[in-house]
Amino acid sequence: MTLDGKPALGIGMVGYSFMGVAHSHAWRDASSFFDVALVPRLRVLAGRNEQAARDVASRFGWESVVPDWQSLVHRTDVDLVDVCTPGDTHAEIAIAALEAGKHVLCEKPLANTVAEAEAMTRAADRAAESGVRSMVGFTYRRVPAIALARRLVADGTVGEIRHVRAQYLQDWASDPDVPLNWRLQKERAGSGALGDIGAHIVDLTQFITGERITGVSAMLDTFVTERPVAEGDSVSTPNSLSGAADAPSDKLSPASAATSASAGRGQVTVDDAATFLARFTGGAMATFEATRFASGRKNSIRIEINGSAGSLAFDFEDMNVLHVHDHTEDPARGGFRRVLVTESDHPYLAAWWPPGHLLGYEHSFTHQAVDLVTAIADGADPWPSFADGLAVQRVLAAVEASAAGKSVWTEVPT
Amino acid sequence: MTLDGKPALGIGMVGYSFMGVAHSHAWRDASSFFDVALVPRLRVLAGRNEQAARDVASRFGWESVVPDWQSLVHRTDVDLVDVCTPGDTHAEIAIAALEAGKHVLCEKPLANTVAEAEAMTRAADRAAESGVRSMVGFTYRRVPAIALARRLVADGTVGEIRHVRAQYLQDWASDPDVPLNWRLQKERAGSGALGDIGAHIVDLTQFITGERITGVSAMLDTFVTERPVAEGDSVSTPNSLSGAADAPSDKLSPASAATSASAGRGQVTVDDAATFLARFTGGAMATFEATRFASGRKNSIRIEINGSAGSLAFDFEDMNVLHVHDHTEDPARGGFRRVLVTESDHPYLAAWWPPGHLLGYEHSFTHQAVDLVTAIADGADPWPSFADGLAVQRVLAAVEASAAGKSVWTEVPT
Amino acid sequence: MTLDGKPALGIGMVGYSFMGVAHSHAWRDASSFFDVALVPRLRVLAGRNEQAARDVASRFGWESVVPDWQSLVHRTDVDLVDVCTPGDTHAEIAIAALEAGKHVLCEKPLANTVAEAEAMTRAADRAAESGVRSMVGFTYRRVPAIALARRLVADGTVGEIRHVRAQYLQDWASDPDVPLNWRLQKERAGSGALGDIGAHIVDLTQFITGERITGVSAMLDTFVTERPVAEGDSVSTPNSLSGAADAPSDKLSPASAATSASAGRGQVTVDDAATFLARFTGGAMATFEATRFASGRKNSIRIEINGSAGSLAFDFEDMNVLHVHDHTEDPARGGFRRVLVTESDHPYLAAWWPPGHLLGYEHSFTHQAVDLVTAIADGADPWPSFADGLAVQRVLAAVEASAAGKSVWTEVPT
Amino acid sequence: MTLDGKPALGIGMVGYSFMGVAHSHAWRDASSFFDVALVPRLRVLAGRNEQAARDVASRFGWESVVPDWQSLVHRTDVDLVDVCTPGDTHAEIAIAALEAGKHVLCEKPLANTVAEAEAMTRAADRAAESGVRSMVGFTYRRVPAIALARRLVADGTVGEIRHVRAQYLQDWASDPDVPLNWRLQKERAGSGALGDIGAHIVDLTQFITGERITGVSAMLDTFVTERPVAEGDSVSTPNSLSGAADAPSDKLSPASAATSASAGRGQVTVDDAATFLARFTGGAMATFEATRFASGRKNSIRIEINGSAGSLAFDFEDMNVLHVHDHTEDPARGGFRRVLVTESDHPYLAAWWPPGHLLGYEHSFTHQAVDLVTAIADGADPWPSFADGLAVQRVLAAVEASAAGKSVWTEVPT
Repeated sequence: MTLDGKPALGIGMVGYSFMGVAHSHAWRDASSFFDVALVPRLRVLAGRNEQAARDVASRFGWESVVPDWQSLVHRTDVDLVDVCTPGDTHAEIAIAALEAGKHVLCEKPLANTVAEAEAMTRAADRAAESGVRSMVGFTYRRVPAIALARRLVADGTVGEIRHVRAQYLQDWASDPDVPLNWRLQKERAGSGALGDIGAHIVDLTQFITGERITGVSAMLDTFVTERPVAEGDSVSTPNSLSGAADAPSDKLSPASAATSASAGRGQVTVDDAATFLARFTGGAMATFEATRFASGRKNSIRIEINGSAGSLAFDFEDMNVLHVHDHTEDPARGGFRRVLVTESDHPYLAAWWPPGHLLGYEHSFTHQAVDLVTAIADGADPWPSFADGLAVQRVLAAVEASAAGKSVWTEVPT
Repeated sequence: MTLDGKPALGIGMVGYSFMGVAHSHAWRDASSFFDVALVPRLRVLAGRNEQAARDVASRFGWESVVPDWQSLVHRTDVDLVDVCTPGDTHAEIAIAALEAGKHVLCEKPLANTVAEAEAMTRAADRAAESGVRSMVGFTYRRVPAIALARRLVADGTVGEIRHVRAQYLQDWASDPDVPLNWRLQKERAGSGALGDIGAHIVDLTQFITGERITGVSAMLDTFVTERPVAEGDSVSTPNSLSGAADAPSDKLSPASAATSASAGRGQVTVDDAATFLARFTGGAMATFEATRFASGRKNSIRIEINGSAGSLAFDFEDMNVLHVHDHTEDPARGGFRRVLVTESDHPYLAAWWPPGHLLGYEHSFTHQAVDLVTAIADGADPWPSFADGLAVQRVLAAVEASAAGKSVWTEVPT
Repeated sequence: MTLDGKPALGIGMVGYSFMGVAHSHAWRDASSFFDVALVPRLRVLAGRNEQAARDVASRFGWESVVPDWQSLVHRTDVDLVDVCTPGDTHAEIAIAALEAGKHVLCEKPLANTVAEAEAMTRAADRAAESGVRSMVGFTYRRVPAIALARRLVADGTVGEIRHVRAQYLQDWASDPDVPLNWRLQKERAGSGALGDIGAHIVDLTQFITGERITGVSAMLDTFVTERPVAEGDSVSTPNSLSGAADAPSDKLSPASAATSASAGRGQVTVDDAATFLARFTGGAMATFEATRFASGRKNSIRIEINGSAGSLAFDFEDMNVLHVHDHTEDPARGGFRRVLVTESDHPYLAAWWPPGHLLGYEHSFTHQAVDLVTAIADGADPWPSFADGLAVQRVLAAVEASAAGKSVWTEVPT
Repeated sequence: MTLDGKPALGIGMVGYSFMGVAHSHAWRDASSFFDVALVPRLRVLAGRNEQAARDVASRFGWESVVPDWQSLVHRTDVDLVDVCTPGDTHAEIAIAALEAGKHVLCEKPLANTVAEAEAMTRAADRAAESGVRSMVGFTYRRVPAIALARRLVADGTVGEIRHVRAQYLQDWASDPDVPLNWRLQKERAGSGALGDIGAHIVDLTQFITGERITGVSAMLDTFVTERPVAEGDSVSTPNSLSGAADAPSDKLSPASAATSASAGRGQVTVDDAATFLARFTGGAMATFEATRFASGRKNSIRIEINGSAGSLAFDFEDMNVLHVHDHTEDPARGGFRRVLVTESDHPYLAAWWPPGHLLGYEHSFTHQAVDLVTAIADGADPWPSFADGLAVQRVLAAVEASAAGKSVWTEVPT
């Protein structure tokens, strides 16, 4: 029981870097701004680098720190395991946690391979039979403007969807002198721009449309194939809270060792950019692009959807806005509305500030925590499920297969 | 001492509504994201409505709750008193706290009258002699794009300033059926749009330019002079965390009783909108507008500055962006740059997320807490000082005098 | 009769510089794109600099050139006199033309003084009795987005107007080394930014609102009081078609002689910038600003109108767009629509290109020519009338009086 | 000789609808605004619908009208033949004109098939040996912002190009009740969105980058396969100047007869939308999309280019603006500049209005006419050449081949 009489939900988190910080903050803010039925308690943080883990724990109020995820997973005061490590460790940790009867929140991408994602989904399905819940961390679904976009498709405002165009544009790798880091290494990251950021726009467009991608034609490329290796991997990471190499997600961080170049340079083993055409179940044509070489675009997630009754457009660089076109209006007065998504009846907004007061990046993590806690309290299945994560993984695999096969059209298995 | 060995700074906060929530969150986040020398501890919250105060305390981890500010001010575990009440109580609370040797953070506007503001400034000056610090909460100064604007004026990028145009546009009062609330009553709020939001743009433009306003020519108006009184004042407040009427700032909230209209309607006794021309010490011409009747504009703070060497433009509806024009560039390639203020060397950004990940409304409060704590730890005077708050108050008073005197040019005393 | 059997309307134009070129093009394009009942014939062009006048005549197909306006005004093949000279000559030419029974199109501002404007209006009224028509060239009224704005106010979309904010921002005078030209000299131009560009936003806001300005509180200033005099006044004029000093309007051109500075510098005798507060007949509060010192703003005409039922926003730098907010909509889906004013049922658009194909600056002059020709053919009074021009002049005079009198509120006579 | 002593260039134009009007205006405006060495004379207009042709001739001053292009091509007073008909007639007319020794301007796409385009290119090459010039009408190259983009790539501002993303979005076919017109019929138009508008973005990106597309992976689709046939094909065409069905380009117009549906509906035999991935010679990855089903997008041509040193972004809905990012700048002050392309040293701008006065759609046609006339006068080869048009045609053919072959990567022959 917490101070205000509500039952608590014990959280154990693995990882403490970029995502670990964002999740820590979200677990704490969830019950501050929302009326949740279970109050998250920050029980234990697991991290190999004990000093770095202790630092994050101290900043956010984690009650304890352990060096390994294995002990965390079996603690009785832990009800939910939050997996914030790179993709190569997701399957092992998440499956162990589910089998230990713990609810699981797993960062995206669900796994580095389809096989791992399938195993995780099976584990999640088994666990669900005994009321254990699981969710994959496609956080951007909970940006209010994105949630509003989903609502407008679901209620018919957009009509039959004809076009989806989605871009996730970053530029941090554009400079060839940016050193190798784990995101540039296949054995840690699974893939490059494709899995790191392309996964987000695959998930977001499937979420917003309520449809699945049925096939793709793809092209991948690596513009800079060799990069400097940082001295002792100690290259400082811009904007990071700790210098640790453990579990960053969605951002750069120094390579974690696995490079053969004794002297100075190592191989980039993932894609720098991915582009693909796609088809959705409802017949819509789509174009996708994910890149770390779009000079001047820092974290630009652009999604535009054109339907028979209307259109939607979003850019994460202006994340509190959704542009909405109603194609049934008199054209003499029609046009894309700039909807500032800060009204109290917009998704998640009733909990925050008055209209016109913007939300930022980390709010989506709070919304994610709230929705997950609520589903657990309600005995409901949260979304996005591991099956949703697997669906994304299958699209990524089809992209890789098509790119390896002269871009030929490649079906996505269901 | 806190867990990580840093000394603590005990906070006592008076008020628990809109501003109380924003401040609570900021005190907590300050040490999570920034390396502060003193760690804020949320010791005690004072609020007349005990249930509402307890609710906020529970959500944010305040250690205790008291019903009156008087006892709070004298507690030995309180090092800093944070005043989040309406303007009519600022002087009394802040002066008492200063005299009790407590550092003070006081919400804006500093006071409802120049006389009160002068008394507060004198108290702050006296307290400063014994190392007691005081700050007025013009939070928007700590929006990173605004802080960057100040930096660009200070380093000469803008040159000699010729024009300032500033607007603070809201629309919540546009509907004549919006009921009376304390913001519409002179005895509580001091003035209407002028003091509530006009104060912000007066402070912001003085901050960015590093200059003071020397005179004004003004016009005030009240478009809707009579409004419905809510049944038992129980009208629900959009987006508010508690229904309580105690201490909201910057937003609407039901009238707090003081209305004689037994039946249904009461008088609006403040301005709905304020417009004025002004002159800055450096010779710049300025136009100001603050209104609650700008349909479709929710919290739009627009500031544009034109100088001999460049220009700056900002809109709070796109708060992570500063538009910067360099007038010394080749016009064939020149133009307003859309600077996305999320780089690690932008003000405050090193503590947050990677480039392209936006901040929201409440981050400025965290920055304010950090800067104040840092000043206290360093034994330095924080800004904006009470004297800065007084300077704003004098401008507001000159505006009211000019408006009452056929808009005749009215000097602002220094 | 013209080749296609329609009757012709003989045009005689005085002046051949910036405005002369824009008008020449418009007279020619009017019957190419619109079904006009009278076909303009470019009969005769009057200009003191014969070579420059011949050049323009040759480029646009004027049938003849004369050195003085006096002979032009009395030619029997001239039905309409188009006055494109600086303001100091408007009254003399326009009145002579009206008295000679010619329709008159007179560039703005109508005159340099209220007295002249009154005399012109009287002459126009007298001429109207015998079917002679007159119009003042506030061309921006015929930008389609502006015409749409007027329509939306007139049909009630905006409701009761509460706020008008209007800015006309240029930056060509910002550099103190820009030489003296006629626009900087009171005896030619009447005033500076106020009459040159401020006149436009006074007219536009009166047009869009359908209301008049009843009073003002104003401030004028000259930032650079002395400027270099060009050698022999031969300074080249950016973007001008001829180097001649005769009749430019709305742009810079070298000073026309009247400077006492034998050596190098002469006095600027007009305002560089004008700001004023205003009140409209319907009660709206307004702010106005006209300046030539807004670094980075080239020809930015920004008008925003807030009413009880909606709002409109326009910027000439994006002149094919009108932003429209419907305040009666559900806020959860509402927002400013970006109306691309290129639909066939938008004002003037049926004559042009398919949707999405933009119009430019000079199209408004074509619309002006078409509307004037149509009014003449229909025996109707065209607008804006000389009385509208006089109304603007009276506002400008009130602005100057207020600025000279400590910004005190100054009524605009009706 | 013309009136001002310059030699004339006799123009004969085939077609008189949308493109005919735009070209007529351009031939006339060329010598009004630019100092051209040869003055275009509008000698003869050929059109099957004599009444419609006479109407356009009368509006723009064509000296004569003939019913067939054959006679026009051999007239001695015609120096240049301007082909404004649909693509199925381009080859026949253009080759005949070239063989008759006439310079040729041919609307895009150059032809409906690669074979025709090859024949035309051979004819152009032969004719060039005797000084006869030819140009294909990819007019958008002469939008000043596009020309500036080309300049910035050519001078190294963008560096090595990594990404190209190009979209041409219209929505006129989105409504299934829009009747069949010639643009929806393969035998007239060759292809649908692909050739009509996709051709433009293929040409523009090849122009701006100075590179060629080497291969594609593509998808085509027709969303609405059957449409109503207009009664007697008399459906009115929005915004058209004549109701005639002859030679519209870039817009809808009623079907010209070729439909078997006696009663009510006919087959759409072209693509509604085309998407493709591509690779440029320099290694850049590209995505292309052309569609007539992007609800709310009227004529949106969006091009973004990311290079190692900078980026460019353009949208035709804001056609006077180019967004320019300099990646070599200090990120703390960097960002996309909104370059308003109206300065006198921007391409083509010296001839037009002062800074800040926008150009519209038809100005590019004037620039095209000027550049062609200048090349003829100078004895130089104008661009884009027929070979450039052929290069575009080959890309379109590769797109169709890839789309027909499971999107497999398809090389573009050189």
